[in-house]
Amino acid sequence: MHDVIVLYNHPVDPAAFDMHYRSIHIPLVDALPHLREFAWGKVAVGDYYVVARMTYHSSTEATASMESPAGKAAVEDLAKFAGAGVTVLDVDRGEGS
Amino acid sequence: MHDVIVLYNHPVDPAAFDMHYRSIHIPLVDALPHLREFAWGKVAVGDYYVVARMTYHSSTEATASMESPAGKAAVEDLAKFAGAGVTVLDVDRGEGS
Repeated sequence: MHDVIVLYNHPVDPAAFDMHYRSIHIPLVDALPHLREFAWGKVAVGDYYVVARMTYHSSTEATASMESPAGKAAVEDLAKFAGAGVTVLDVDRGEGS
Repeated sequence: MHDVIVLYNHPVDPAAFDMHYRSIHIPLVDALPHLREFAWGKVAVGDYYVVARMTYHSSTEATASMESPAGKAAVEDLAKFAGAGVTVLDVDRGEGS
């Protein structure tokens, strides 16, 4: 399994972030090809605002997903609500599945 | 669902980290009460070395788990192999399950 984890920095306008994330970004993520699981949540304790995890069968499928038109649309959408910055981690679960 | 996510900084000695993590730390995590799912992996692309996720039914169960003797043992073990530092995030998945 391969996880793409997105750590969102605290937004300047949380309400605007939340509205855009739920109404526009999540549907874009749901449209990603090869995606096996998508989970996200608000950070209750810690240095980020939201953590999202997209799980794929393999890094190959994760790359294909991100390079697809739907993947590019999801990445381009980040500029519209996540201007405070994101950290993206590609994680090979390997034996830690 | 409630995730406790641990982001491990790059260790000075990755081989020593790996050996301690697999042989000592993972068994301590497996012993945690209330734990519903444990997944971890090496970061292939990104600013951390390992990402681990412990999933609980609720934040209440996560807190009880961490405050148990097994939880304290797991946290105390961090000092023995994760001296490069960790970032811990408590994430309420809410509707993002």
